Amino acid sequence: MWGENIATADLFANATDIHSIVQALTTLANASDVFFLVVMGVLVFMMQWGFAMLEGGQVRKKNVNNVMMKNMVDWLIGCVAWLFIGGILCSKGFDLSAFIDWWKQILGTNWPNNGLDLASWFFGLVFCATAATIVSGGVAERIKFSAYVLISLIITGLLYPLFVYLGPWGASIVPWHDYAGSLVVHGLGGFLALGAIAALGPRIGRFVDGRPVPILGHNIPMAVFGAFALAIGWYGFNVGSSLALGDISGLVCATTTMAMAGGGIGALIASRNDVLFTANGIVAGLVAICSGTDVVSPIGGLIIGLIAGLQVPIVYKLVEKAGLDDVCGVVPVHGTAGVIGAILTGILGLKIFGGAGGVSLIDQIIGAVFCIIYGTGLGYILAKIVGIALGGLRVSEEEEKMGLDMAEHKMPAYPEETVI
Amino acid sequence: MWGENIATADLFANATDIHSIVQALTTLANASDVFFLVVMGVLVFMMQWGFAMLEGGQVRKKNVNNVMMKNMVDWLIGCVAWLFIGGILCSKGFDLSAFIDWWKQILGTNWPNNGLDLASWFFGLVFCATAATIVSGGVAERIKFSAYVLISLIITGLLYPLFVYLGPWGASIVPWHDYAGSLVVHGLGGFLALGAIAALGPRIGRFVDGRPVPILGHNIPMAVFGAFALAIGWYGFNVGSSLALGDISGLVCATTTMAMAGGGIGALIASRNDVLFTANGIVAGLVAICSGTDVVSPIGGLIIGLIAGLQVPIVYKLVEKAGLDDVCGVVPVHGTAGVIGAILTGILGLKIFGGAGGVSLIDQIIGAVFCIIYGTGLGYILAKIVGIALGGLRVSEEEEKMGLDMAEHKMPAYPEETVI
Amino acid sequence: MWGENIATADLFANATDIHSIVQALTTLANASDVFFLVVMGVLVFMMQWGFAMLEGGQVRKKNVNNVMMKNMVDWLIGCVAWLFIGGILCSKGFDLSAFIDWWKQILGTNWPNNGLDLASWFFGLVFCATAATIVSGGVAERIKFSAYVLISLIITGLLYPLFVYLGPWGASIVPWHDYAGSLVVHGLGGFLALGAIAALGPRIGRFVDGRPVPILGHNIPMAVFGAFALAIGWYGFNVGSSLALGDISGLVCATTTMAMAGGGIGALIASRNDVLFTANGIVAGLVAICSGTDVVSPIGGLIIGLIAGLQVPIVYKLVEKAGLDDVCGVVPVHGTAGVIGAILTGILGLKIFGGAGGVSLIDQIIGAVFCIIYGTGLGYILAKIVGIALGGLRVSEEEEKMGLDMAEHKMPAYPEETVI
Repeated sequence: MWGENIATADLFANATDIHSIVQALTTLANASDVFFLVVMGVLVFMMQWGFAMLEGGQVRKKNVNNVMMKNMVDWLIGCVAWLFIGGILCSKGFDLSAFIDWWKQILGTNWPNNGLDLASWFFGLVFCATAATIVSGGVAERIKFSAYVLISLIITGLLYPLFVYLGPWGASIVPWHDYAGSLVVHGLGGFLALGAIAALGPRIGRFVDGRPVPILGHNIPMAVFGAFALAIGWYGFNVGSSLALGDISGLVCATTTMAMAGGGIGALIASRNDVLFTANGIVAGLVAICSGTDVVSPIGGLIIGLIAGLQVPIVYKLVEKAGLDDVCGVVPVHGTAGVIGAILTGILGLKIFGGAGGVSLIDQIIGAVFCIIYGTGLGYILAKIVGIALGGLRVSEEEEKMGLDMAEHKMPAYPEETVI
Repeated sequence: MWGENIATADLFANATDIHSIVQALTTLANASDVFFLVVMGVLVFMMQWGFAMLEGGQVRKKNVNNVMMKNMVDWLIGCVAWLFIGGILCSKGFDLSAFIDWWKQILGTNWPNNGLDLASWFFGLVFCATAATIVSGGVAERIKFSAYVLISLIITGLLYPLFVYLGPWGASIVPWHDYAGSLVVHGLGGFLALGAIAALGPRIGRFVDGRPVPILGHNIPMAVFGAFALAIGWYGFNVGSSLALGDISGLVCATTTMAMAGGGIGALIASRNDVLFTANGIVAGLVAICSGTDVVSPIGGLIIGLIAGLQVPIVYKLVEKAGLDDVCGVVPVHGTAGVIGAILTGILGLKIFGGAGGVSLIDQIIGAVFCIIYGTGLGYILAKIVGIALGGLRVSEEEEKMGLDMAEHKMPAYPEETVI
Repeated sequence: MWGENIATADLFANATDIHSIVQALTTLANASDVFFLVVMGVLVFMMQWGFAMLEGGQVRKKNVNNVMMKNMVDWLIGCVAWLFIGGILCSKGFDLSAFIDWWKQILGTNWPNNGLDLASWFFGLVFCATAATIVSGGVAERIKFSAYVLISLIITGLLYPLFVYLGPWGASIVPWHDYAGSLVVHGLGGFLALGAIAALGPRIGRFVDGRPVPILGHNIPMAVFGAFALAIGWYGFNVGSSLALGDISGLVCATTTMAMAGGGIGALIASRNDVLFTANGIVAGLVAICSGTDVVSPIGGLIIGLIAGLQVPIVYKLVEKAGLDDVCGVVPVHGTAGVIGAILTGILGLKIFGGAGGVSLIDQIIGAVFCIIYGTGLGYILAKIVGIALGGLRVSEEEEKMGLDMAEHKMPAYPEETVI
């Protein structure tokens, strides 16, 4: 295996004319696309670990294992739902023949062009799993594990792929510009969470006599490491969204970087040096830039990030004032940041503002409204239906006080610190 | 440096005929292979960090620094052993002239084709280090640090490369299909650990009057983060095993993903929502798919993963019943999962089951038996010899009770929580 | 989006003659360079997370959130400083017209060749941010957050880019061989820290009656995970420094690996199994190899690493003896390791020692001396000026005792373990 090199250069060993060169180049190009989609997809898959740390750090010790299980299991279930349903629904809608062709193909190993279709399937999967796992951060510390698993299954198998199909990545029934999913992934995740949060109700002790009482997480550095891992993975999220090596864009890399910087600085200023808001501001800046990362200038990226970061502490307080317990602030970090990003794309993407053009503010606003209604509405309805189906959406009051780690998984997160 | 772009495109600036184009393409192809092997190798190297977290979370506070040292030092030693011996032994066997040529070459900087041979050497190294570090999880909390270092040196310098040479990646004296090492790396690591565990004996208090008494690790989230890091790295492990960009396979990416999902879901079900078994089930699914990841269908991958995940809690109990103290469950997660994966490759790799064909169940069974005997036998013998050479394999009872962090490294893992 | 493949292979669909093939190849080459620079740059960006863990683990619980904020904010500020000033100053010096052209360009989206210039800009940014964040580890646990932010701004906007411009990556006014920045990044960062440490003074209780009193960090495994993340990122640091896919070098990958091994083993031996020194030895080996990673042999890399690792505990003691409180040992790990690596490049890079040649020991010594003077001098002056500008460089004694997390950020790192 090592030492004897099977080299890609062998492709060109017998290339002696135009035709044979082009044939060899086509193989190299397909292989390069598979490599591109796998590396970018693995970076996005790293965001599952990032979300587990970001959410894990922001919950109490007695619920950390439950967060670990939710973040592992929504990925595991997402893979199966995306293989059998999601991956086809999102591009072909409810076309039964397309499903049957696909089911036949995944029973075999006949995948031409170095398996490019499966690399593309993988890149779609990690986007779907990201949308689903965002909800976890909003409903933490009181949702039943079985309810969360069922909600994840329905999001990854139906709600997300259908939203994709209706939006710009599918049949464009509702067309807006969304290069890497400010609305398709993050806005949807954030507003699905809003609906579920409303259906679920707040944690015990989160509001006392209508007054909000902060419930701090157990490990702030763990949450910051989560933000770092998300920021690293985000380069796969945005730069990978060219879907082909040949269309990769250095501009997307730069606007992603500057929006991250703007998001962190905006939240740092608005929260007066708060560690968690600064970390979440970085994520909000990255959420906001997804939509227009390919059509705004680097300065435009910085501006989008700044606005997205500044709004995080503000919207967090508004959600709290509405009596909603959004544990990890997913509504401001993914919901409203996604909407703001999409709308600003319709402005800073215009040529007069240095953008590449080809965007319309109206389309962006329509997309945003559609996302808010689709997400919040279906998030609420889904949570209520699952609650009925499982005899309740929440663990019992006694279980919530004991902590979900012991109640649902029979194991504390830090055994030597807990008398079992 | 920045701003003035030395671009790869310059390769083609003077390409004016077939010959000059092919020459430039050969350079691009070699450079792309080096880039491919480095990126995939770095993902596998990330698994060293994953193993450090997976094992670190599953030991008590008083032994965490010792786990950190074992996982750093088996890598450091593996680099040296692989440079001087392992990297040649695995492909050329005991051919002295090949060793001499290699030793001359590593004293210099003459490495043609963009140093492709050294990129290939690096990719072989990270596989070797993975096999060695698996043993660490089985022998934790009571092995002498010096004994572990010596065992690692012999595994990375002799036992692993020799096993590679005898198997399908070397001279194929024992031929079986093992695309990314279900047996060559993980089965070997798991059964070497079994042999060493048997030679070492259990931790104090692990069995009382013959009854097993669980000794919980100190940080379950740390272990789960380890499983996430391993899963991320595994895409380098499997997809990188094409060894050349031109042979990359999207099918390998998909079967790896589905086996991960099957492994986690299988262990989740078999352990009734246990956090550690679910995380280890994800790893077991990934171990099992290595062998046939290129010849089974995506559904085949899911099935292999499910079976590998289901068996983890079952085999863990059997090993425990046999009075063996496998701290991190490396026998079920790497040993039996590797064997199951290899054997199922001989079934689900057949054309009648949608596989790509070119596999034989008999070969797979022979390879599995060879791996179990070679690993367990040499693991036991090696541990016994090292024990004799160092005046004992284990730290003293007093040191084991104090904890290896203070006994062997004079520093607690969490200084502010420990009175020194 | 998924399912309908826009493939890179389409580039060659209409390539029917030499000219059209070369045109398509130029696009593929540029896209490959952008992909190369983004992936390598993301690996280096991962080192920000590595530094946050390495430093976070080596400070006490009451200062961990402050370390998180410093490591997030020096990145955020670095992005902005590098976009507006640093990225141009480093290659064009104080050429106003070059600044104006650049500022015009970043207000727009006109970036040819797949945005290759912006990918190159991004790769420069992550190097700059690395140099700045090294200082954080030296000044931890007593510097004002506002002072640190201002120091980072001036390092990333002025001191680092100017040093680059003067050195081998810019106008080469002081020419030495520094492939990936032993001096340009790490030596500079280490000696800037030395100057700032001298200006800042030690932590309360670090020296009692002139005798050094160790102040242990709170989480050694966190620091080791930081070293792992840095080592992973370092492959981007060194292998990415070819700046173009076509010039990638497998030799750089191998010498980087062997220097890492030498560094860890050297520090392990010199510190007699100390966990933190071994982890920092790995980093020191990687620092030292940056300069000559492309011109020394794999054995040369091992030797450079060994020497760099051996010196870490020795220089740490010398700095301590000088009454200087270098919390994370950045002077031996980045400063002197960088100088040693640069000088050894002038020896082991020579042909007689198996090197590729083209290096001069005199140049390397001149570069080292220039770096020590530039770094220590400007580090000291900058810290003093910032101290004056902000009414003091340090937090008050009372704040230092309370801990910077509560004093500067109003939030403990582990809320459930602290009575707020």
